[in-house]
Amino acid sequence: MRVHDIRFPTSRTLDGSDAMNPDPDYSAAYVELLTDDGLTGYGLTFTIGRGNDVCVAAIEAMRSYVVGQAVDTVDLGEFARRLTHDSQLRWLGPEKGVMHLAAAAVINAVWDLTARRAGLPLWRLLSAYTPDQTVDLIDWRYLTDALTPAAAVDLLTDRVAGRGQRAAEISVAGYPAYTTSAGWLGYDDAKVTRLAQEAVADGFDMIKLKVGADIEDDLRRFRAARSAVGSGVRIAVDANQRWDVPEAIDWMKRLAPLDPYWIEEPTSPDEVLGHAAIRTGLREAGPGGRPIRVATGEHVHNRVMFKQLLQADAIDVVQIDACRVGGVTENLAILLLAAAFGKPVCPHAGGVGLCELVQHFSFYDYVAVSGSLDGRHLEYVDHLHEHFVDPVVIRDGRYLAPERPGFSAQMRSDTLTRYAFPDGPEWRVQ
Amino acid sequence: MRVHDIRFPTSRTLDGSDAMNPDPDYSAAYVELLTDDGLTGYGLTFTIGRGNDVCVAAIEAMRSYVVGQAVDTVDLGEFARRLTHDSQLRWLGPEKGVMHLAAAAVINAVWDLTARRAGLPLWRLLSAYTPDQTVDLIDWRYLTDALTPAAAVDLLTDRVAGRGQRAAEISVAGYPAYTTSAGWLGYDDAKVTRLAQEAVADGFDMIKLKVGADIEDDLRRFRAARSAVGSGVRIAVDANQRWDVPEAIDWMKRLAPLDPYWIEEPTSPDEVLGHAAIRTGLREAGPGGRPIRVATGEHVHNRVMFKQLLQADAIDVVQIDACRVGGVTENLAILLLAAAFGKPVCPHAGGVGLCELVQHFSFYDYVAVSGSLDGRHLEYVDHLHEHFVDPVVIRDGRYLAPERPGFSAQMRSDTLTRYAFPDGPEWRVQ
Repeated sequence: MRVHDIRFPTSRTLDGSDAMNPDPDYSAAYVELLTDDGLTGYGLTFTIGRGNDVCVAAIEAMRSYVVGQAVDTVDLGEFARRLTHDSQLRWLGPEKGVMHLAAAAVINAVWDLTARRAGLPLWRLLSAYTPDQTVDLIDWRYLTDALTPAAAVDLLTDRVAGRGQRAAEISVAGYPAYTTSAGWLGYDDAKVTRLAQEAVADGFDMIKLKVGADIEDDLRRFRAARSAVGSGVRIAVDANQRWDVPEAIDWMKRLAPLDPYWIEEPTSPDEVLGHAAIRTGLREAGPGGRPIRVATGEHVHNRVMFKQLLQADAIDVVQIDACRVGGVTENLAILLLAAAFGKPVCPHAGGVGLCELVQHFSFYDYVAVSGSLDGRHLEYVDHLHEHFVDPVVIRDGRYLAPERPGFSAQMRSDTLTRYAFPDGPEWRVQ
Repeated sequence: MRVHDIRFPTSRTLDGSDAMNPDPDYSAAYVELLTDDGLTGYGLTFTIGRGNDVCVAAIEAMRSYVVGQAVDTVDLGEFARRLTHDSQLRWLGPEKGVMHLAAAAVINAVWDLTARRAGLPLWRLLSAYTPDQTVDLIDWRYLTDALTPAAAVDLLTDRVAGRGQRAAEISVAGYPAYTTSAGWLGYDDAKVTRLAQEAVADGFDMIKLKVGADIEDDLRRFRAARSAVGSGVRIAVDANQRWDVPEAIDWMKRLAPLDPYWIEEPTSPDEVLGHAAIRTGLREAGPGGRPIRVATGEHVHNRVMFKQLLQADAIDVVQIDACRVGGVTENLAILLLAAAFGKPVCPHAGGVGLCELVQHFSFYDYVAVSGSLDGRHLEYVDHLHEHFVDPVVIRDGRYLAPERPGFSAQMRSDTLTRYAFPDGPEWRVQ
């Protein structure tokens, strides 16, 4: 196992700026798993700069669980459960924060390797599993009051018949996307207007704006974006956890006349009750008395929190993240929970490699879990894809199906050299 | 700032063993803050072995917030808020897991230093603040839907009049304690019986047993302990997050005839809704149809989670921890929330130095916040105190008031040498 601290100096251009993250340097703790038969597995976890080294240290603390495993016999469910339930490491979470980000990188690398060995893109590998095989991969601890393994098998079994047809269909049509590239908080109105118009010209029917720092600025930028795209294009807004509960409701009522499609991360990601209160408070706040949808998930730290957000009917949109929770296996659990509660999954993407990773979950969800595109929009941000060997491809506002074997997580070797922190050439010139 | 990786090989004797933590090596990431005027501040965060190095790395990532600060002018509330809201480090939480454990060590060290400079034990320093000064220390983000700063000032103001009398009273009488030393899961029945009898002989009127691995074992050990101490001594039980929600209710109904005083950590610490369901399920499960109390907190990762546990009426006992959340300042917020919701605080202790630290919160809570001892019991475990310069003193089942300046966190210098990991003599002999 090799672990790399890779950082991109994105703060120099305010790409990725929002109300809580004014100056991110998009970064990855990046894992390579080398095997005797010559194949390598790649995984990563995403951070925004400082502390990426702490994630590297956390991945190193898991080394004994990884090195020496026989790739052809490893039980991937058991592997993830052992990693996240190590009796001493568990104290540092459990299943949250740095240790869980680290677990994601390691678990994702093992899945990348497994998919490469199978000669399949991850979404097709997962789509080929039987319901029983799928359910066996999941850590059911703390879930059974909301969803039992047996009920999950039933849910998956109901979708088996249409799998082949949906896979064929989605691999031609692609998966619907929206773009956040127009709306970073650090961009001025002219840039927002120009980028919003370009997004529509590129085929997107949904964009997202960052809000939450100043209500007057938000109103002005939102009006500029709405003027640029017209009423037929969805505009979601994202406050990146900036507000307390009462403030979230008041602020969104101010923005409501501009028809926000959803409000994302209105408050702390830990807020089960708070999101429920906000959703109730905005139930009739949209134009024509329609509800304003509530979305969250990129910082929701594990399946237990997602379960509660669903049990409390606190959100309308489930935003999974490829690296925040425990990688592929925990995301399978969250996809199943969302399907069981009838809520659409719209993954968080952007960052470093998150588009490359989460696209596999959305294609898989359509084929084998929810079987639906209703209310589904996969985030797209057009940064940093040039650093990946198998980058996402967007056409007419849709993700084209990734077809190369693996989990699309491999970075280019010159990127690993150039952006190595702190000794790579991109950082030494500072 | 100096940071030490200190580990004690407690797994060799199964001290500290429970249903989720079978073989802990009690450890601390330990911080020394050296100042130009010769005083040093000491702080720590507690772990159970592997991963203590990750906490050390996380503390190092906060170095720029600490080194070079002017001790006599630092705003302690602002210091904590800057540390926990660093725009890049925050991504790794926010306010949870390794980064928050690290923040606790640093914030606690600054408070130790502040109390030493004032020549007061921490609890007396805090007790001398005005309500406004106290409220200004707290990070109110995400709390205002449950408690506003103004309401907190009112609450504290109501307690001002009796402060002097309560401080005088508690410094003579001591604070009521219970002991967990009798009940570790790795101990056999004879050892449980002997230690339970010794606890009562030592003046304790409450003990705690670890449960959750095997129901028949639990019944046998609980019966042995109940026989040893009689019906007049409270016996709490602690499952260390072992169960799902339905399992917790069923298991506790089996143990109910033995009159458990509370069930601690029945399930995931992330479970706001789950604890509420368990509490409802056990409302009439005790002898005579009395409720079995529900307790949690040692793994509850920040004030937002405690707030929700209180809003949902999910727990009867609020178990703060000195190092899990962001140190002194976040614990002040949680003490205020508990008082506002009328719930007793019974801190988690044991580990490495947790008794030394949390005693200050309980004495302070009695003097200035809740003003009550009703339902309050401060955990005591008789391990590792010999490594501290100012160890806790227990007499007749009560903590005696700590009176030396500071936060009682300083370890002995020979301990820092002997138990340094991995190069100290205690680890090299392995």
